[in-house]
Amino acid sequence: MDFAYDERTEELRTRITRFLDEHVYPAEAVLAEQIDGSDDPWATPPVVEDLKTEARSRDLWNLFLPGEHGAGLTNLQYAPLAELTGRSPRLAPEAMNCSAPDTGNMEVLSMFGTEQQQRQWLKPLLDGEIRSAFCMTEPEVASSDATNIETRIERDGDHYVLNGRKWWSSGAMNANCAILIVMGKTDPDAERHRQQSQILVPMDTPGVHVKRGMQVFGYTDGDHGGHAEIEFRDVRVPASNLISGEGEGFAIAQARLGPGRIHHCMRAIGMAERALELMCRRVSDRVAFGTPLAEQGVLQQWIAEARVRIETTRLLVLKTAWLMDTAGNKGAHTEIQAIKVAVPEMVTWVIDRAIQAHGAAGLSQDTPLANLYAHARTLHIVDGPDEVHRRSLARRELKKYR
Amino acid sequence: MDFAYDERTEELRTRITRFLDEHVYPAEAVLAEQIDGSDDPWATPPVVEDLKTEARSRDLWNLFLPGEHGAGLTNLQYAPLAELTGRSPRLAPEAMNCSAPDTGNMEVLSMFGTEQQQRQWLKPLLDGEIRSAFCMTEPEVASSDATNIETRIERDGDHYVLNGRKWWSSGAMNANCAILIVMGKTDPDAERHRQQSQILVPMDTPGVHVKRGMQVFGYTDGDHGGHAEIEFRDVRVPASNLISGEGEGFAIAQARLGPGRIHHCMRAIGMAERALELMCRRVSDRVAFGTPLAEQGVLQQWIAEARVRIETTRLLVLKTAWLMDTAGNKGAHTEIQAIKVAVPEMVTWVIDRAIQAHGAAGLSQDTPLANLYAHARTLHIVDGPDEVHRRSLARRELKKYR
Amino acid sequence: MDFAYDERTEELRTRITRFLDEHVYPAEAVLAEQIDGSDDPWATPPVVEDLKTEARSRDLWNLFLPGEHGAGLTNLQYAPLAELTGRSPRLAPEAMNCSAPDTGNMEVLSMFGTEQQQRQWLKPLLDGEIRSAFCMTEPEVASSDATNIETRIERDGDHYVLNGRKWWSSGAMNANCAILIVMGKTDPDAERHRQQSQILVPMDTPGVHVKRGMQVFGYTDGDHGGHAEIEFRDVRVPASNLISGEGEGFAIAQARLGPGRIHHCMRAIGMAERALELMCRRVSDRVAFGTPLAEQGVLQQWIAEARVRIETTRLLVLKTAWLMDTAGNKGAHTEIQAIKVAVPEMVTWVIDRAIQAHGAAGLSQDTPLANLYAHARTLHIVDGPDEVHRRSLARRELKKYR
Amino acid sequence: MDFAYDERTEELRTRITRFLDEHVYPAEAVLAEQIDGSDDPWATPPVVEDLKTEARSRDLWNLFLPGEHGAGLTNLQYAPLAELTGRSPRLAPEAMNCSAPDTGNMEVLSMFGTEQQQRQWLKPLLDGEIRSAFCMTEPEVASSDATNIETRIERDGDHYVLNGRKWWSSGAMNANCAILIVMGKTDPDAERHRQQSQILVPMDTPGVHVKRGMQVFGYTDGDHGGHAEIEFRDVRVPASNLISGEGEGFAIAQARLGPGRIHHCMRAIGMAERALELMCRRVSDRVAFGTPLAEQGVLQQWIAEARVRIETTRLLVLKTAWLMDTAGNKGAHTEIQAIKVAVPEMVTWVIDRAIQAHGAAGLSQDTPLANLYAHARTLHIVDGPDEVHRRSLARRELKKYR
Repeated sequence: MDFAYDERTEELRTRITRFLDEHVYPAEAVLAEQIDGSDDPWATPPVVEDLKTEARSRDLWNLFLPGEHGAGLTNLQYAPLAELTGRSPRLAPEAMNCSAPDTGNMEVLSMFGTEQQQRQWLKPLLDGEIRSAFCMTEPEVASSDATNIETRIERDGDHYVLNGRKWWSSGAMNANCAILIVMGKTDPDAERHRQQSQILVPMDTPGVHVKRGMQVFGYTDGDHGGHAEIEFRDVRVPASNLISGEGEGFAIAQARLGPGRIHHCMRAIGMAERALELMCRRVSDRVAFGTPLAEQGVLQQWIAEARVRIETTRLLVLKTAWLMDTAGNKGAHTEIQAIKVAVPEMVTWVIDRAIQAHGAAGLSQDTPLANLYAHARTLHIVDGPDEVHRRSLARRELKKYR
Repeated sequence: MDFAYDERTEELRTRITRFLDEHVYPAEAVLAEQIDGSDDPWATPPVVEDLKTEARSRDLWNLFLPGEHGAGLTNLQYAPLAELTGRSPRLAPEAMNCSAPDTGNMEVLSMFGTEQQQRQWLKPLLDGEIRSAFCMTEPEVASSDATNIETRIERDGDHYVLNGRKWWSSGAMNANCAILIVMGKTDPDAERHRQQSQILVPMDTPGVHVKRGMQVFGYTDGDHGGHAEIEFRDVRVPASNLISGEGEGFAIAQARLGPGRIHHCMRAIGMAERALELMCRRVSDRVAFGTPLAEQGVLQQWIAEARVRIETTRLLVLKTAWLMDTAGNKGAHTEIQAIKVAVPEMVTWVIDRAIQAHGAAGLSQDTPLANLYAHARTLHIVDGPDEVHRRSLARRELKKYR
Repeated sequence: MDFAYDERTEELRTRITRFLDEHVYPAEAVLAEQIDGSDDPWATPPVVEDLKTEARSRDLWNLFLPGEHGAGLTNLQYAPLAELTGRSPRLAPEAMNCSAPDTGNMEVLSMFGTEQQQRQWLKPLLDGEIRSAFCMTEPEVASSDATNIETRIERDGDHYVLNGRKWWSSGAMNANCAILIVMGKTDPDAERHRQQSQILVPMDTPGVHVKRGMQVFGYTDGDHGGHAEIEFRDVRVPASNLISGEGEGFAIAQARLGPGRIHHCMRAIGMAERALELMCRRVSDRVAFGTPLAEQGVLQQWIAEARVRIETTRLLVLKTAWLMDTAGNKGAHTEIQAIKVAVPEMVTWVIDRAIQAHGAAGLSQDTPLANLYAHARTLHIVDGPDEVHRRSLARRELKKYR
Repeated sequence: MDFAYDERTEELRTRITRFLDEHVYPAEAVLAEQIDGSDDPWATPPVVEDLKTEARSRDLWNLFLPGEHGAGLTNLQYAPLAELTGRSPRLAPEAMNCSAPDTGNMEVLSMFGTEQQQRQWLKPLLDGEIRSAFCMTEPEVASSDATNIETRIERDGDHYVLNGRKWWSSGAMNANCAILIVMGKTDPDAERHRQQSQILVPMDTPGVHVKRGMQVFGYTDGDHGGHAEIEFRDVRVPASNLISGEGEGFAIAQARLGPGRIHHCMRAIGMAERALELMCRRVSDRVAFGTPLAEQGVLQQWIAEARVRIETTRLLVLKTAWLMDTAGNKGAHTEIQAIKVAVPEMVTWVIDRAIQAHGAAGLSQDTPLANLYAHARTLHIVDGPDEVHRRSLARRELKKYR
């Protein structure tokens, strides 16, 4: 149970912090302007490409990816870096080619892709030339249960044919989105967790109909690819597009889940740190009824409570990362569920208090807080609502006494 | 302490409910489409004008206004009607010409306006021909303390000249917005609550610069006029535009505060009722892990808790309305502060739970919930943050024992 | 929906307040001393009898009882009086012969007792000469479901014979406790709510074994009769001791439930008011880090929040009392459940904050707060845990949309 | 940041767990009986002495004490052991001679005591032959601020003379309590943190008047020494009884604070683990409305939430212990405050939910839960209320941005 940041981690943290200070934070206002001034909400603002170039020149690129294709960091080494990117979540992750769902897709291709699949899709993704989407959630069913999935992937000679409807397919509204990884059922009659497969579907395949972008509160998340509703009508792709093999879909999803959870949670902790910093700066500047807010008891309680909650949840996430490195995803199962519950609760609370400390400005486009909140609020729902994870945690706990 | 809904109230409730069912709820989807299809986020969607026509033909018009110019209802009579309009807050209040800040502006003109001011501005507002804005909050100061206001209104012969900057001026982005009521200081050296005045400024007066619309969680609130940042640079209006008299600004603000608080709070209760209804319908329809959500303990606790919280806060608001009718705004001072604290806490909680019960759909444009949440969240801040009101309530409580 | 306190209520409130100020509050320290100095924790301290004499001489006696045997007050008239007695819950209710479970027992005897039963038991209870207990809860089963009851009441010629085990039989440790009302099953095969009967069992009947007094936290509640565990072994009583008739047990229990809930809840509100007063006085007196606690923001938030929560829940209880008076227990069913949930949550929170404001003194015997907390905490459990009531409330709510 | 339990820790955990299972848990019922049957609430029940003998024979003795006099464990090594003793806090700590305030007193004597002081007092304390008390808190002042202390320690020739009043002096009601460590002022005019000294006062010194035992929620805590109110009237002790030197009182208090906080917090985590286990067992056994409680959603949420909260706070305490071992008390200052805030909030919540899951039994003497709650509730107050620590944490946080 050693969570210390090693030398390589510390060195990368220093370099990322510098990159944030010198380039990313100043780019936030530019991003807002470019979005305001753009006719197409789904176009990638130029400032993003500038940051990508800068990050790559600083060798802050693909840090998320273990193994030969990436930086080769462990979960425990990457976790504190993900936290830093979370401080500016609309810019930093994408700038460093570490943004979801590309990260998960690249991991899947790196672990399970054929040589051809890797050449065709992993290579340009690693180079930041294209974007990708992951199509799992469906509008009609409770998708936290993978056996509910209704999209069909049917073999037809040398091809597979897809039919179904997905939504919240993150990244799919992006103009650069070239490839989709789609989860569907190849054999609805197989054993529960052998029914599903995952397959590569190029965006321009006939029958792929992007219906609309989903909003979160009033945000389209257009700047980093949005979340699409997509209809697949008789979409035909070569059989060689299947990833790993028929019936492997559930196992592939599980493999991406653990690291993805760590990334999400650590970025969320970075978001909370950012919110706490903004709150501290605000209350130091602002005077009300003759006293600086910083000296008012209620605000002090919020700040202290925020600090305590951030520290405790960060330790739990680091422990989880360490467990995954040492005992595998399975050995860290309980902890992976625990952070799903603990982190969203912490981060929405911290951001909400930071908003309150800012007054109306906190709800507006003048601080990143409202946007951070919208993003944080989704964490209570994505990958299954908190309540489902708590139920599962309770069952495990109860088993100890049977 | 008699809060019963009298015959007239019940009759109006029946008619408004019918109007909501037959026209307003069905118009919600139309509104979304018209906004999506519009180039100008600030244009009033045509469906709003249709609803206004319909409401007026049904004599559901200007119900908020006591006295000869309006329906002549008491606060206790109007409160339950405001609740109903809150069930569809983007459409119903405006459809019935009962939406803020026009309501407050009309009340002010009705109580304090000269005959000429009433003819020129109150008349077309009552007819729903123009919209108005109220310019009070300023970006640089904690505006919950009226003595902080920095905008100047200086006498120059037969005119007043305004200089200053306002934001969150609700309604001012609306294309039909013709008139602003502006709060500023005519005499910074007068006694604390005699420094301020309110003055009428036609929107097209030279020097009125609308800088931008403020966002709330990504929403522009364009459909009902938005919240503008406005700069006043040497804005010159006739001296006869002053409302009531120099130094009366604070007293006028106080007069509009009480009824405004009731309206806000009762609409918020209507929002909570709508959210609870949506939650109940959702959990009755949806099955997860083999059981309808409606039979799952956690969701039942949320539903029961929502019902209890709505009931208790509604009673407090009704008591406040009744007190205002019988003891005046001053006699209801404590209660007016108490509902400012109690209602936002209740309504954000209820809507948040309804969102969670909906999963990702609850955060999207597919239900009104995310939009309701954004609106409800502002109630913790507008008219001064909750914490300021609690402080003031505590002081009153502590005085009892000195 | 008229909750105003009428003239008679106001007059009684004035007189009770005077009685509290002049006799009850000063007696609290005396009570503590007499308990400390007593060898028998179950003996009634003499100060209680003194207060009874005083209360009776002031005609503040049996106010809880409607109808000819009592003061004839409505629920709405008595509720504000119950609140006042809650300000000193260990002394005031008993002093005024208005303490549970005697109140419920007297109501039952008054409504359902035969002339002989009333002469033998109701009369001395009304005169405060004896005490009584109510034996419903059983240790082995979830007693919030009356059909679980296992105690048997079997007919044997002119007698009934009881066998079973009860606990939390309030009042039964009192040396003056002369009579028990016992709930048991006369016919386990009858329809669900016709299996139970209630029967009068004199305390000195052979086979009645009082095993022990239950504690709540470290308190025995000896001063007002405690809560006993009782075993009934072949306890034989005349058939004429049955109340109302075989199979009427559930209906009788329902009849006492509504008024009992009002009494409990209003006393709890009185407890919260007392705690708030103590908190206000404490923070006005105490200085820490150079500032009176009363001027510190956190404490102000607690005080304001306490005031708001007390006001809202009181309104709900008053509405419930009014509904019971006008629509009967059945018409007020939802509200009776709602106050079961709302009041305990409010009162434990208020008392807990008052304790915190007092520091260690708040936990000790030097203030009534710890004792109040212990009592308030039981309200989340007695008459069925909050969660059961919320479940039932949710089902009612969900039915609206089916 | 390595919190792993090393081999020695694991070996001790195994042995302590066995001791708990074989001796301590079975002794809990015996303790209750012996207390019930005893005339003197302050006498040490015989079962405690039996357990001490057993623990000593198993070499589970004085594990808390670093250095030559004790087991020589680091904070990180001892912390998980303290957690285990917290599972039965009325018996295990004392059985293993690891109970407060003796632990702190022994640490102080071990670090600062003269050879004679160690021979006279440390030796019999280490042998478990006598008990001790620590007299710091005073009834009249906010004692979380050490400069408020009013007790005087005045030099008079070869003696010091004490005058003052203390309360919540833990352990002082114990019949075996032989020695008091008293904090007082030797020089009120010195610099803020040089005014205080600590001095040894034998219990039988003339002028030491134990006035009464303080209660916590009705409990006297008689079984482990209670909390006394003590008056010191012209108490004269030899000058050689002074610990370390005049003006060192504050520094000595600081030195005991860090380890004491770790002990308190880890025991509290053990209490939470015990409560969670009891809750799990209860809900597995109990059926309500046809379903085992263990399958009801609300209870599952509590169990999962309890598990998550315990894990996160434990990590924070372990980190703090590790920091103290590697960076000293000062280097761990922020964390020592953070656990003061985080742990009490967690543990009172967990125990409260466990109580609710047990119904009325949870509040009674039939489970340890109510007693655990009473103890846990004090943790929000002892060593200064949570709010004071949060204020201090906030100030540190705010300094980062100045």
